[in-house]
Amino acid sequence: MSERPGRRLSRRALLTTAAATGAVAATGAAAGGVLLADGDATPSATSVPASTEPFHGKHQPGIAAPQQRHALFAAFDLETTDPVKRTRRSAEQLATVFGTLMEQWTLVTANLMAGREPGLRPAGSPQAPADSGVADGLAPARLTLTFGLGPELFERIGRADRRPRALEPLPAFENDRLEDAWCGGDLLVQICADDAQVLSRAFRTLRSRTPGSARLRWTQQGFLGAFGDATPRNLFGHKDGTANPRPGDTGFDAAVWADPAAGPAWFTDGTYLVFRKIRMDLPKWDTSPAHVQDQVIGRRRDNGAPLSGGHEFTTPDLTKTGPDGEPLIPADSHLALVRDIPMLRRSYNYDYGIQGTAEPTETGHRHAGHDHGPGMPAHSGSGHDRYDSGVLFCAYLRDPEQFVRAQRRLATDRLNAFIRHTGSAVFAIPPGARPDRPLAAGLLSAR
Amino acid sequence: MSERPGRRLSRRALLTTAAATGAVAATGAAAGGVLLADGDATPSATSVPASTEPFHGKHQPGIAAPQQRHALFAAFDLETTDPVKRTRRSAEQLATVFGTLMEQWTLVTANLMAGREPGLRPAGSPQAPADSGVADGLAPARLTLTFGLGPELFERIGRADRRPRALEPLPAFENDRLEDAWCGGDLLVQICADDAQVLSRAFRTLRSRTPGSARLRWTQQGFLGAFGDATPRNLFGHKDGTANPRPGDTGFDAAVWADPAAGPAWFTDGTYLVFRKIRMDLPKWDTSPAHVQDQVIGRRRDNGAPLSGGHEFTTPDLTKTGPDGEPLIPADSHLALVRDIPMLRRSYNYDYGIQGTAEPTETGHRHAGHDHGPGMPAHSGSGHDRYDSGVLFCAYLRDPEQFVRAQRRLATDRLNAFIRHTGSAVFAIPPGARPDRPLAAGLLSAR
Ligand code: HEM
Ligand code: HEM
Repeated sequence: MSERPGRRLSRRALLTTAAATGAVAATGAAAGGVLLADGDATPSATSVPASTEPFHGKHQPGIAAPQQRHALFAAFDLETTDPVKRTRRSAEQLATVFGTLMEQWTLVTANLMAGREPGLRPAGSPQAPADSGVADGLAPARLTLTFGLGPELFERIGRADRRPRALEPLPAFENDRLEDAWCGGDLLVQICADDAQVLSRAFRTLRSRTPGSARLRWTQQGFLGAFGDATPRNLFGHKDGTANPRPGDTGFDAAVWADPAAGPAWFTDGTYLVFRKIRMDLPKWDTSPAHVQDQVIGRRRDNGAPLSGGHEFTTPDLTKTGPDGEPLIPADSHLALVRDIPMLRRSYNYDYGIQGTAEPTETGHRHAGHDHGPGMPAHSGSGHDRYDSGVLFCAYLRDPEQFVRAQRRLATDRLNAFIRHTGSAVFAIPPGARPDRPLAAGLLSAR
Repeated sequence: MSERPGRRLSRRALLTTAAATGAVAATGAAAGGVLLADGDATPSATSVPASTEPFHGKHQPGIAAPQQRHALFAAFDLETTDPVKRTRRSAEQLATVFGTLMEQWTLVTANLMAGREPGLRPAGSPQAPADSGVADGLAPARLTLTFGLGPELFERIGRADRRPRALEPLPAFENDRLEDAWCGGDLLVQICADDAQVLSRAFRTLRSRTPGSARLRWTQQGFLGAFGDATPRNLFGHKDGTANPRPGDTGFDAAVWADPAAGPAWFTDGTYLVFRKIRMDLPKWDTSPAHVQDQVIGRRRDNGAPLSGGHEFTTPDLTKTGPDGEPLIPADSHLALVRDIPMLRRSYNYDYGIQGTAEPTETGHRHAGHDHGPGMPAHSGSGHDRYDSGVLFCAYLRDPEQFVRAQRRLATDRLNAFIRHTGSAVFAIPPGARPDRPLAAGLLSAR
């Protein structure tokens, strides 16, 4: 890889790129007309506001687009019991439930992303208002909704033969400290927007369609500062995303979009999302000297430059040594270990704070107790242990194998002294919706 | 109260008002020079950015200022055990611990609000970096930090005689469903900013001063959409804050600032904060017809006008009746019950989502089971019950008695079918810091 001075694309350039790669602007007629319409999609503004992202297109939104400032990830499971008959649903019944939900989610998503009312009322509530009103007066704030399908869904709806080939549950990793509460799911929704309340309203709209068809399994919310066109910083203070491929670069498509040759055909233009909830020990990090912090990552915290020199976009030189003969970028630094495994990281910082009762007194509090060693039970009650803040790591990839390879290499990562993986999920992200094609329609179409 | 067409002040006007009421801009020299300075407060920008709120002043910041888009409330308890000697601290020792912490928090707050580095490293870590770097490159985003003192603090530090007269633990209320985890605290910090990451960095800086002197008790984070100069909407979709007094109005000072005649003298220009964590049943609300929603509040959701007619700022007419002879604003609506109890509400929406394991299946799920009746245990495991979203109700008042009176009246509020109070705390908010006066200094000064 060569030097990349000034290579960072502006937000405007990225948007143009996204449009050029096949996105088609949603129109009211297209979005409201094709599918069920038991609601009324009154436009909430006379013209489409500038702060919208296109919904229809080759790929789903919320992937190649520049990151918004807020994100919510919500995982659902299909409702396997019929709520009226109280009998177990067959695979064909579940396929119908799934198909209807995706059609309805497609319809409301097209409306919400364009700044219109949802177009459907909450399930089974004809007397309910057309919208929660929570975002009345707010611009769409670049709202995007991105939908994913978990590995177990396909068998459940009797479509095991149409499962995207590379989609499998992730293997266990050496340092995993996963908690069931934040793992898995049949369906995923990633909701991103520059306004937390716009995001909140979109989530409510989606959730209001689910009674009887899906149950909420977990949610996680994250944020990013207003970094504009600069690389956002994670909660360790480091720029995070520097080495990402950029839309339009050679390499972006090959890193991100699923291999169409691998199949199945309906999944062409899809991708995969690996989601990991990673807790960070912020007090431990904050009290580590600057050079220790930098050597953990292999880059300078202040400007993001590799420790081998240059600026943020200079190619790291893993062979360059310092006066002591040691590599300037330590061999067990994060950078050295995962260097050149391509993926699009689109992560968010999170802070759930301290939940539950107070931290134990400082006297009963041994620093050695929260070293993340394997002997320490989750939720052991130690103060730092119960503070839940870190990163919602998200990677979009051609094949989840890229993540598996990277995470295996990270078994000896210096970062492991400061982090703990507590949540994990993987999803196939179907291709984008078109006016005549709801999300994931190809999965259910006649064989 | 008369009609108030066009009475809503612009953000600019409010800022000017705040400045006129005695705020003095912080200067680097004043903030960095007076107190301890074991760190280095390098300015992170050459000139003070426009997006700062003044720290020094008659009153603390974050009260009269227009609401920012994000808020974090963090409660701490003083550390009663000496971490080195492992003995119980005396009241005088606790007073010293408290005084030092307030001096250090004052120093870092002045720096952070002005967009500078904190000026102090984490407690006991001379080798730590001067700052977490998390907000490098971000503007101060109108960051404000507001500090409060809980009712039990005064006895604990041997200053029961200097307790602000009106500060007492809140009484129990009829519909309380409080959980210890979200109640009380010796010290409160309210951190507000238009950028969630700027806020996050400020919290970390404060927390890094506490090892050995205070323990984190609870945190709660909230948000508001970018409503600009319009009244923000809560998660029921209603405009929330319409009837608030505005800085500069007759009535504002009398509603908000503590009565100087009530004493003690050091507390002149202080105020009180009542904090309530109130969960909302959003699915139940969203499936209630529009007229039911409006009658619960006594105002129209769409434009905030009272049901007696007019626009958002028209004075409600509680006597006006409809064709059926009933009052247009129901007597047990929220509005009718609390009408004319003055307070400055500065609340934030929150969404902690679903934590823990999945919702129960729809079949095992009876709607009658989540009506918030007193028989229902907290965390009963019912789906809606475990979804934690609502409002962080904050009221600044001359005397917490105003809140007590209002909350007692609300015992018969129609809103109670949709909400549940789960957290509660009350704090005395000391007067503002001055360059020569750290926060709460008057509490400890010689008698
Ligand atoms: C809390 C956990 C993590 C933190 C704080 C973190 C932080 C960073 C930072 C600061 C960089 C350098 C800047 C950049 O290129 O973005 C980086 C690069 C990278 N990280 Fe992570 N990371 C974490 C977890 C992971 C995980 C779990 C993976 C995948 C298994 C991963 C894969 C990568 C990759 C592929 C790069 C680019 C390396 C290159 O080619 O230069 N990271 N990470
Ligand atoms: C989830 C709980 C609550 C919701 C959704 C809510 C909502 C509202 C709304 C929509 C208004 C009308 C617009 C406005 O003037 O701001 C209002 C007014 C008001 N609320 Fe609440 N509120 C809640 C709890 C409380 C509590 C606990 C108190 C105090 C004990 C309170 C005190 C007031 C007061 C004093 C007014 C102004 C009434 C007037 O003079 O017109 N509210 N509230």
